[in-house]
Amino acid sequence: MKSRWKKRVKHIRRKREIPPLSAKDLKEYIADRISAVDRGLDRYLPGEDIIPHEIHRAMRYSVFSGGKRIRPILAIAACEACGGRRVDAVPAACAIEIVHAYSLIHDDLPSMDNDDLRRGKPSCHKKFGEGIAILAGDGLLTLAFEILSTQRNGIIASTIVKELALAIGTLGMIGGQVIDLENKGKDVDLPTLEYMNAHKTGSLIATSLKIGAITARTTKRKVKAIWRYGEFLGLAFQVVDDILDKEGYAKLLGAAEARREATLFIEKAKDSLYPLGKRAQVLKALADYILERKD
Amino acid sequence: MKSRWKKRVKHIRRKREIPPLSAKDLKEYIADRISAVDRGLDRYLPGEDIIPHEIHRAMRYSVFSGGKRIRPILAIAACEACGGRRVDAVPAACAIEIVHAYSLIHDDLPSMDNDDLRRGKPSCHKKFGEGIAILAGDGLLTLAFEILSTQRNGIIASTIVKELALAIGTLGMIGGQVIDLENKGKDVDLPTLEYMNAHKTGSLIATSLKIGAITARTTKRKVKAIWRYGEFLGLAFQVVDDILDKEGYAKLLGAAEARREATLFIEKAKDSLYPLGKRAQVLKALADYILERKD
Repeated sequence: MKSRWKKRVKHIRRKREIPPLSAKDLKEYIADRISAVDRGLDRYLPGEDIIPHEIHRAMRYSVFSGGKRIRPILAIAACEACGGRRVDAVPAACAIEIVHAYSLIHDDLPSMDNDDLRRGKPSCHKKFGEGIAILAGDGLLTLAFEILSTQRNGIIASTIVKELALAIGTLGMIGGQVIDLENKGKDVDLPTLEYMNAHKTGSLIATSLKIGAITARTTKRKVKAIWRYGEFLGLAFQVVDDILDKEGYAKLLGAAEARREATLFIEKAKDSLYPLGKRAQVLKALADYILERKD
Repeated sequence: MKSRWKKRVKHIRRKREIPPLSAKDLKEYIADRISAVDRGLDRYLPGEDIIPHEIHRAMRYSVFSGGKRIRPILAIAACEACGGRRVDAVPAACAIEIVHAYSLIHDDLPSMDNDDLRRGKPSCHKKFGEGIAILAGDGLLTLAFEILSTQRNGIIASTIVKELALAIGTLGMIGGQVIDLENKGKDVDLPTLEYMNAHKTGSLIATSLKIGAITARTTKRKVKAIWRYGEFLGLAFQVVDDILDKEGYAKLLGAAEARREATLFIEKAKDSLYPLGKRAQVLKALADYILERKD
C-alpha cells in the first residue's frame, strides 16, 4: 500500500506543478515549437549552394512553403507530455515534416492528383519540372531516414525508423494513396473512404505522436495512450479537412453530421490521455485546436 | 615481439584453412547467394494477395525481373570476407536490392530516361501506369529502410540506415540521377561523366560492400579496406557497363582505353583487400567476374 500512496502523492505534486493552459499560452506554445522545427529543417536540408543545386532548391521550396507544421508540433508535444525535453523530439519531428513534404510533392504529380497549385503557389513539378519533382520527393524521403538514424541512442533510432517506415509504406500512407488513385473521379462508399483516410492521413499523424513519445524514453503504457490519442486525432483531422474542403465525409454524411463525428473523435482522443495526468494538457488543447481550425 | 609473432602464426593458419577458389566454385558461390537473396526478397515483399494488390504486384514485378543481384552478392561476400555469416548480411543485402529496384523504376519514368523496356520486358510504368510505378518505387524505398531497422542489433541497424541513406540521397545516387537528367541528350565531358558514374552507380555498390562488412561486426580497418575495394569496383563496374552499351567512357575514350581503365580499377580494388588475407579470395574473384561480364 505504501508504494501506491507514494505514487498518488507524486501524482498530486505533478498536478500542482503545471498550471492550466490558456488560449494565449497555446498560441505561444505552437509558435515556439514551429520556430524550433523550422530551425531544425533549415539545418537538415542541404543548402541551395550544394551540388546538385536544382534538387536542393526544389526540396527547400516544398518544405518551406507555409505548411502548418501540425505533425512535428504533435511529435514534440507527445514527447513533452511523456516527460521528455523538446530537444529530444526535434530531429524526429523534422524528419516527419520532411516525409509530409515528400508525400505532397508526389501526390501533386500529373499522374496522381495532377495539382498545379499547392498552398496558393505553383506545385513542385510546375515550378521545377516533373523529373526534378519526383527526385526531390525521393530525396526528402531518404533524408528523413538519414535524420532518424542519427538519433544518439541506436536502439531508439532503429525503433523510430521502423515505426515511420511502417506508417508510410504500402500498408500505411502509400497504400492510402493507391486506393485514392484507383478511385479517382468515382463516388466512394464510407468503408473505402475510411480506409483511405486512416491510411493516407491518419497513419502518419498517429505515428508522429507515437514517435514523439518514444523519443521521451517513456513507459509502454504512456506510448499506448499517446498512440490511441493519435488514432482518434488522425480520424478527426481528416473529417475536419473534408468539412473545410466540402469533400469526402462532408459529402457523404452532410456537414452537420460530419462535425458531430469529428467532435466525438476529439473527445475520444482526449479521453485516451488519462495515463498522462496533468501533463496531457497541451495535447488536449491541440486536439481542440485541430477541431476548430479554419484552414 | 611475441604478440606479433602470434599474429603471424594465426595469419598463416587462416591462409591454410581456406582453399583457393576455382571458376566452378565461384559459380556455385554466386548461385547459392542469389538463391538466399531471392528467398529473402520473397519473404520481405508483401504478397500480391495483400491490399492494395496492384502496388504489391508492381513491386514484385520489378524486383523479380531477372536482375543479376550483383549488389546483394557483394554485400554478403563482404560480410563473409570479414568473418561474418551469410545470414547476418541477408536482410541488408535484400534491402539494397530493393533500393536498386526502386531506382530503376523511377529512372525509367517518362519524365526521366523514358524507357519502355527493362531487361527485355515492359518497364514498370508501361505495365502498371505511371501513378502506380511512382508509388511502387516509393514503397520499395520505404520497405528497404523498414527491413534495415529490424536488424537485431539496434546500433548496427541505425548505422546501416545512415550509410544507406547517405549513399542514395541527393549527395549520392539521387544526385547522380539529377546530373544525368540535366545532361540528357548532351555530350558530357569526362569530369561530369565521372561525377555521374561515381554517384549514380558507384555510391550504392561501394556502400553495399561497406554495409556487408558492418553486419559482420568487424574492425574499422577491415571496413575501410572493403570500402576502398568498393569504390574502385564501382568505378570499374560503370566503365564495363559503358563498354557493353557503347556509351559514356567507351564513347569518350574508345573501347580499348576504357578496357585498360577498367582493368586498372579492378587491380586497385583487389590490392585494397590485403588486410583481409586469404578470406578476400571471393571478393577478388568477384572483381574479375565483374570485369569479364558480358551483360
